[in-house]
Amino acid sequence: MEDHLLTSFGTHLKSLRLERSFSQEQLAFKADMDRTYVSGIERGQRNVSLINIFKLAEALDIPAKQLLDFTVEGSL
Amino acid sequence: MEDHLLTSFGTHLKSLRLERSFSQEQLAFKADMDRTYVSGIERGQRNVSLINIFKLAEALDIPAKQLLDFTVEGSL
Repeated sequence: MEDHLLTSFGTHLKSLRLERSFSQEQLAFKADMDRTYVSGIERGQRNVSLINIFKLAEALDIPAKQLLDFTVEGSL
Repeated sequence: MEDHLLTSFGTHLKSLRLERSFSQEQLAFKADMDRTYVSGIERGQRNVSLINIFKLAEALDIPAKQLLDFTVEGSL
């Protein structure tokens, strides 16, 4: 159940990143994170914290709530 | 900076909880969390994870993005 959530969030983050033509490296740098951490998030392997969600939102220049504006594939 | 975020999130969670006349105990039970953890979140002392944000949203019967729909008091 929770895997669906992390995977859906990762897919959503990747689409937001690509919409802005950012590489993972660029997003990681802007969000003050390691590239491998961003890569892990996008692969649904990281249960991101509130602070990191806000850092990613700031890096993408979007409101944090938009980062949670996605549908969880499969059951939650 | 990050303290403002956690404190603002905690204040927001508390107002959403009280709007529904839930006690911390009731919210914790519905979200499958310990009451002391919910108390810690509301006091701005927990950097909540994505999975727990979704559990809280489901317990409050709101979309997860609404849990991040708040203004961070002070600078971010």
